[in-house]
Amino acid sequence: MSVDNNHQLDILFDPESIAVVGASSNTSETGWVKLLIDFGYQGKIYPISLKAKEIHGLKAYPSIIDVPDAVDYAILNVPARFAPQAMQDCVISGVKFVHCYTAGFSEAGTDEGKRLEDEMTITARNGRVRLLGPNCMGIYCPESRLTFSEDFPKERGRIAIISQSGSEASRLVFLCQDVNQYFSKIISYGNAADLDASDFLEYLAQDTETDMVALYLEGVKNKSRFESAVRKCIKKKPVVILKAGLAKNGARAALSHTASLPETKSVWNAFFKQTGVIPALTMDEVADTLQGLTRIKKLQGRRVAIIGRGGGIGVIATDICERTGLKVPPFSRETQAKLLQIRPDAGANIRNPVEPKLGMEGAADFYLKGLPIIDQDTKTDIILIQMAIDVYGGHTPDLVQNVTEAAYALSAVADSIKKPILVALFTGGHIDTAQAAATARDILTKAGIAVFSGVETAARTISKISDYYRFLENN
Amino acid sequence: MSVDNNHQLDILFDPESIAVVGASSNTSETGWVKLLIDFGYQGKIYPISLKAKEIHGLKAYPSIIDVPDAVDYAILNVPARFAPQAMQDCVISGVKFVHCYTAGFSEAGTDEGKRLEDEMTITARNGRVRLLGPNCMGIYCPESRLTFSEDFPKERGRIAIISQSGSEASRLVFLCQDVNQYFSKIISYGNAADLDASDFLEYLAQDTETDMVALYLEGVKNKSRFESAVRKCIKKKPVVILKAGLAKNGARAALSHTASLPETKSVWNAFFKQTGVIPALTMDEVADTLQGLTRIKKLQGRRVAIIGRGGGIGVIATDICERTGLKVPPFSRETQAKLLQIRPDAGANIRNPVEPKLGMEGAADFYLKGLPIIDQDTKTDIILIQMAIDVYGGHTPDLVQNVTEAAYALSAVADSIKKPILVALFTGGHIDTAQAAATARDILTKAGIAVFSGVETAARTISKISDYYRFLENN
Repeated sequence: MSVDNNHQLDILFDPESIAVVGASSNTSETGWVKLLIDFGYQGKIYPISLKAKEIHGLKAYPSIIDVPDAVDYAILNVPARFAPQAMQDCVISGVKFVHCYTAGFSEAGTDEGKRLEDEMTITARNGRVRLLGPNCMGIYCPESRLTFSEDFPKERGRIAIISQSGSEASRLVFLCQDVNQYFSKIISYGNAADLDASDFLEYLAQDTETDMVALYLEGVKNKSRFESAVRKCIKKKPVVILKAGLAKNGARAALSHTASLPETKSVWNAFFKQTGVIPALTMDEVADTLQGLTRIKKLQGRRVAIIGRGGGIGVIATDICERTGLKVPPFSRETQAKLLQIRPDAGANIRNPVEPKLGMEGAADFYLKGLPIIDQDTKTDIILIQMAIDVYGGHTPDLVQNVTEAAYALSAVADSIKKPILVALFTGGHIDTAQAAATARDILTKAGIAVFSGVETAARTISKISDYYRFLENN
Repeated sequence: MSVDNNHQLDILFDPESIAVVGASSNTSETGWVKLLIDFGYQGKIYPISLKAKEIHGLKAYPSIIDVPDAVDYAILNVPARFAPQAMQDCVISGVKFVHCYTAGFSEAGTDEGKRLEDEMTITARNGRVRLLGPNCMGIYCPESRLTFSEDFPKERGRIAIISQSGSEASRLVFLCQDVNQYFSKIISYGNAADLDASDFLEYLAQDTETDMVALYLEGVKNKSRFESAVRKCIKKKPVVILKAGLAKNGARAALSHTASLPETKSVWNAFFKQTGVIPALTMDEVADTLQGLTRIKKLQGRRVAIIGRGGGIGVIATDICERTGLKVPPFSRETQAKLLQIRPDAGANIRNPVEPKLGMEGAADFYLKGLPIIDQDTKTDIILIQMAIDVYGGHTPDLVQNVTEAAYALSAVADSIKKPILVALFTGGHIDTAQAAATARDILTKAGIAVFSGVETAARTISKISDYYRFLENN
């Protein structure tokens, strides 16, 4: 079953032809047909419309049954009440996958919605059509140019996402794009009336284009199958799970969103611990974790060297790291003596945290001279660099230049440093600091350096990745 | 003593004359003299320099003793080894306050540093000069145009800050400025060799220009006096404290930064609880709390109405609120019936969270029609609006326009809404979404609406402010 199923799912991500059932005949509107054309999908597209003869230059058919060729994949964009009939037509046409985009099924909480979902699902099952959804955005696969947003990047990456929320999946795409991380495949699957997280996870576990998998789950239909799929996948690649709806009213909200039933927090947490799943509470945390998994390699321990400015910022950063279960021990005497040679001024802290000269203009120089010294320190395992750009409030005329220089200096020296390097880039709300930060973030992440929004998110990521590597060693 | 002391501190914030001892004779450099001139300080400035005859158009004197007039306030910008002698000269000149900017005293951890600090402090005490510092940035007071950064705003506000870290105080100024919050007085006081947090707190408690006080503390010299100052202040205005250095190595870092001795976390936490102090762990949290104190009024309870988009985002937001000790109950049947009239489409959740139409373009309309309905709801106390701008990834051409419209619509309707309104504005790292967010943040905060970086920070702030009001009711 698993092998057949996997084979079958190949077509879901790379269909040779797509029918859009209920294609918009309003050409000024971005409907599914235009979306696929604009994103560069190379297969055949068949618009199905009762009104139009032609949509975006493509011949339209009144019913999918009228399409003369085989259709691999159909997108249902018809009101819920017409969905069972549309599915029946797809069965007759021999469609392999139906993505039901429309909402108004079991998640609506009405008997009618439930009945329509059941009817559509039974029709699909009896007709050997696999159903994605309903109430979901479908597939994003840059390789085959499938997408559910015109704004998604066309770059291919090695992260896969399985999400019951289309909007959270979209947020994740952009959060990751901001740090130059890209995707192999994203599946938004909504109510999971037929295809569920386990199907996708089994497929992605063996997918050679995918290095890691993150899931946004509201509920799982067959728990023992899901558990086994997770265990199998983790043997090959890391699995990050955001289990939403664990709070009392969060579960209620999930019920309205994807008709997922409540489940207890303790059961899920125990499951994460046993299996080595990396848990996350928000999509921002998922994005951070994916970056950590990609960019923090060879993590030997939890002892952090903190570089970066101002006494108070260093004290707070130390507190945050230690609250997160990391250590910030003093550097060895040798390291301190060497650092004193490059930072001999009064008031310069060289014990850990260590500060470059005040202001971003001192940072570039310190990275080039100080990082090789700290890399040799025997008391620390990982280097956390604070770039507190928000301390300038956007008013320093040469801010972008100084921050850019610092980012290039760090990128240049990073290759020769053996310890993992992370950057906590505090942006603030001012548009000038945000601009400087965006530039630095782009330079650093293109050089493969992990960049986080602050010390809290950086420390949390170090801790998670460290826990994950420890799990791998002990299991 | 307290009355005399307060009277005396008036001059600290509004000196009629300032001497800069060790004024930079390099006119291309922004020294203290230029800083005061450029910021618009209206009193007399006396540069003291052995080299120059004139600095930035002002007559320079070889020693402060040579200044013919009375000097209220002297800034010591000389190396630590010359500081005791410079202090002696200030005593002879009858200076009232000395701000010792220089570092290299007890915080350096050397016997010599300790000795120099003690000598300078004893000289000051015997000569009836009050000492601010050493190792600190001094005073920012927009009213009298004292500053330690040329980039600080000249706008006056009603928040006072007492900080042992100049850089963290600077970050706070900019974080607050981003949400249109300003300051009455900021004191950066470093090693606290003489004037300590208690002196400033006693003064600010009775300062009619100040509505609330936040402190960044690494240590306190006289704890019983500090405790009494906190208790007195809280009877008049709220006190927020960031106690840094509570982790093991955080304490070590604090020792190197301002020579503050370790103290236990449990003692401080018990103190916060007993006195009603609002604790914070980072300066970002301090900024959020100050905004909450200013903008969240008449908070009746902890039941949150969540507005804002996408199913998954709503489920996660509900989870976050409930983890933070807030409730997200379903709206009353009446409210749900009314919301259904303005959001009748399939898949629209109207139970709480409620979602405007997909996309920011639906938001403005929903705020105008939906907020008055939710304001009448009997099951919720506070309204949290999610503006997840980052879901657009910066690629929507009309993003800024739609977000701006939504912000203006919300500002327009907010006045007529009785429940407190908060906005969680997710920015993401893309420069276009950051630009849209900066515009919206400015519009909203100018209308007095509290804006936070996400649901986590918003929920944490609601919880803190609610705890504070509850404390006031019970004490």
